Amino acid sequence: MTDEKRNDMDVKALIFDVFGTVVDWRGSIIEEGNAWGTEKGIDIDWARFADRWRAGYVPIMNRVRKGDLSWTKLDDLHRMLLDDLLQEFEIGGLSEEEKHHWNRVWHRLKPWTDSVPGLTRLKKKYTIAPCSNGNVALLNDMAKHSGLPWDLILGAELARHYKPDREAYLTSVSLIGLNPGEVMMCAAHTMDLRAARECGLRTGFIHRPDEYGNGGLRQADTAEPGDFDVVAEEILDLASKMGA
Amino acid sequence: MTDEKRNDMDVKALIFDVFGTVVDWRGSIIEEGNAWGTEKGIDIDWARFADRWRAGYVPIMNRVRKGDLSWTKLDDLHRMLLDDLLQEFEIGGLSEEEKHHWNRVWHRLKPWTDSVPGLTRLKKKYTIAPCSNGNVALLNDMAKHSGLPWDLILGAELARHYKPDREAYLTSVSLIGLNPGEVMMCAAHTMDLRAARECGLRTGFIHRPDEYGNGGLRQADTAEPGDFDVVAEEILDLASKMGA
Repeated sequence: MTDEKRNDMDVKALIFDVFGTVVDWRGSIIEEGNAWGTEKGIDIDWARFADRWRAGYVPIMNRVRKGDLSWTKLDDLHRMLLDDLLQEFEIGGLSEEEKHHWNRVWHRLKPWTDSVPGLTRLKKKYTIAPCSNGNVALLNDMAKHSGLPWDLILGAELARHYKPDREAYLTSVSLIGLNPGEVMMCAAHTMDLRAARECGLRTGFIHRPDEYGNGGLRQADTAEPGDFDVVAEEILDLASKMGA
Repeated sequence: MTDEKRNDMDVKALIFDVFGTVVDWRGSIIEEGNAWGTEKGIDIDWARFADRWRAGYVPIMNRVRKGDLSWTKLDDLHRMLLDDLLQEFEIGGLSEEEKHHWNRVWHRLKPWTDSVPGLTRLKKKYTIAPCSNGNVALLNDMAKHSGLPWDLILGAELARHYKPDREAYLTSVSLIGLNPGEVMMCAAHTMDLRAARECGLRTGFIHRPDEYGNGGLRQADTAEPGDFDVVAEEILDLASKMGA
């Protein structure tokens, strides 16, 4: 069934969720935290720190989505959460420069091993872009840092609406001059894909069983063939399934 | 003096005018026009056609800039101009699909020979992006078509203001998370550079003596060393002068 569906598709662009789907936010924060903690003599559970930081993400975005907070880019939301976390973990005495640098760990998240080769293959056949809640500068720095070969950067900041608001998907589609049915949203998160499908986009699920480690923040989403237009093991598999 | 200035600069991103600076709009339209005209039996002066199309560009954008027209992306402005031109040149009987395809010749403009190798060098050291009045889809299609290695696409459509409005430059700077003094606007047009300089950006002039051919639309701009932060012969020379 999936093969037949694929033949019906006229997909010209693939847009990607990034945190968890393209990069390993949890592993990257733990790794930098351990190195930085050793250097600074800060001995905390960095896995728990990463999970607590990520746990604040949806609630604070929802404050923007509901209008309790005016439009605030993700760097600034991350910083508000970080300031609370530093208190919670009793990390004191950091300079403003150190806090700023540490907040930008999100700009330095590392891709899953299949991400760069998979995107490189997809780019030859399709327009590829992030459609992330990360702000443009964050996504550009991340791409420069890790060689993510995006054609351009799309997403929440250009719409001034966070996913899963419709505007985040539809502004991205409109900017690349396509119809929703010509664009496939690719993500490891079923809620993101369902919201994109509601807007008329095609959907590609990417399994990321290790996104949340064993931290208990939540379980990784799963999908069966047929749940979405494409269900892939990772991005190289997505490239194969999309004929790239 | 230019060398000393350069050493004072803390430039992290170079943003580029595109039409004339990175791609040869006139030569590309003449080439496609000649091929298409031969195929369709349309025998007109394609150089004059290209010049007339481009001559309509500033006046119609100024209607948007002054508020006579609400925000309209460049593809749609080009189409309004094309519909008039087809009458002026007495080209009739085109299907909607043919008009649409021909309007998108702007998506297929070809780079000057130094553009791709020059940008490829610059990309290793700097963030590079168009800051053009072309809409995002136009710029993405052009990049895919010719291998322009942009990190991301910036410009007028994201600000919903055409250059030389300040918003077009400052929105681009803000999206990449830099200060104006960390961004260099690069263009073959002195008016564009002067407007960017007014906003606090660094400026790089690129000579394009052949932009207007011998068509008489206007003379190519020139600049002397010291008129702008960098004055380059072409984009490979700009890369050398920027240490890339």
